Amino acid sequence: MNEAGTLDPVTRSAPRSIPEATVARLPIYLRCLQDLAADNDVTVSSERLAELAGVNAAKVRKDLSYFGSYGTRGVGYEVEYLLFQIRRELGLTRDWPCVIVGLGNLGQALANYGGFTDRGFVIAALVDADEEKVGTELAGVRIRHIDQLGKIVAKDDISIGVIATPAAAAQEVADKMVAAGISSILNFAPTVISVPDGISVRKVDLAVELQILSFYQEHRARLDEAG
Amino acid sequence: MNEAGTLDPVTRSAPRSIPEATVARLPIYLRCLQDLAADNDVTVSSERLAELAGVNAAKVRKDLSYFGSYGTRGVGYEVEYLLFQIRRELGLTRDWPCVIVGLGNLGQALANYGGFTDRGFVIAALVDADEEKVGTELAGVRIRHIDQLGKIVAKDDISIGVIATPAAAAQEVADKMVAAGISSILNFAPTVISVPDGISVRKVDLAVELQILSFYQEHRARLDEAG
Repeated sequence: MNEAGTLDPVTRSAPRSIPEATVARLPIYLRCLQDLAADNDVTVSSERLAELAGVNAAKVRKDLSYFGSYGTRGVGYEVEYLLFQIRRELGLTRDWPCVIVGLGNLGQALANYGGFTDRGFVIAALVDADEEKVGTELAGVRIRHIDQLGKIVAKDDISIGVIATPAAAAQEVADKMVAAGISSILNFAPTVISVPDGISVRKVDLAVELQILSFYQEHRARLDEAG
Repeated sequence: MNEAGTLDPVTRSAPRSIPEATVARLPIYLRCLQDLAADNDVTVSSERLAELAGVNAAKVRKDLSYFGSYGTRGVGYEVEYLLFQIRRELGLTRDWPCVIVGLGNLGQALANYGGFTDRGFVIAALVDADEEKVGTELAGVRIRHIDQLGKIVAKDDISIGVIATPAAAAQEVADKMVAAGISSILNFAPTVISVPDGISVRKVDLAVELQILSFYQEHRARLDEAG
């Protein structure tokens, strides 16, 4: 899936049979199917789902076939059943307690971002190294010290860690997360972190997205100047 | 580039000759080269750069060849010159004034995120629809009303718009951005927006990243239960 290079999943523990690109498209299909269900659509063709998801229909059929969904010729897929299947594959039939480490502006925004809890990601714990922040509350959760991470992860059975620290602190935080037993990390710090085999990492670098936009902006500007 | 489906660039105005996947890797190469320059490395082999960027060496050579960079056999690429070339291609030799629309937690985090200004993205304007926010200051910039967007974009020559509103407001904001003359949009709202041809959009959905992590977490859990 990392064709683009903008997101770096380290997913050595991925199920062998399902391509990473397929996994990355499942949340997109999920969102499209939720929209269809909201419109009371009962079935959807692969062509329509492909159009909504912005991929081609052959890819949709191939992706869904990994989960044993083949649709019915001339009818398509049952929306509700496909929703159930994708939610199950994505692990969204259970809650995933998360911890956010680093509560500067970005960490605070993430803690307050309604879109996580809505979708099964419960912000179970907030952690910072700053003694002034420790003990205060954010989004109804008390901020605790990074030294307590091991205890917190064990007690709340946390499996996903979100790094929202500055770049300089990210590797140390990742090491502490791994030591505490966290096996999935979402890294917002603008740096690459190293983790042992079996730990999944996805990286979101907000400035990278802007740089990709500025590439097109720059090349448009050049065309304008040339024309 | 949209192999992964997690980022949806609408880049119909892209230069024909340069694949989107290559464009998306340029910011990654840039970051690696900056690290090498910081270490005073003068040259870098395609193998080393590939290792740092997490792609294969043939892809690095192919990507850089689009910009006329071929390296020297047995020596590699000159770090400083390659940095200059990539920065030029990415349009980072000029500043890009941006406007952030929507100043809830996420918009505030983005306004305060140092990583943008560092890299040539100047937060020139902040805009909200909430009369209570209008007139207050954030990160040294006065918040203005969305109705002023056209004026603001024209006066500050803004080319990049960042949508940090709730999903329900995103399409209307995108329409207003396009009407105001903005041609590149970074969308953080958890919804798909439609734009006319010639407008670039990149979408960041934070929950999608978590869902991809939960897929692997779920499948690991199943293996554990089976084993």
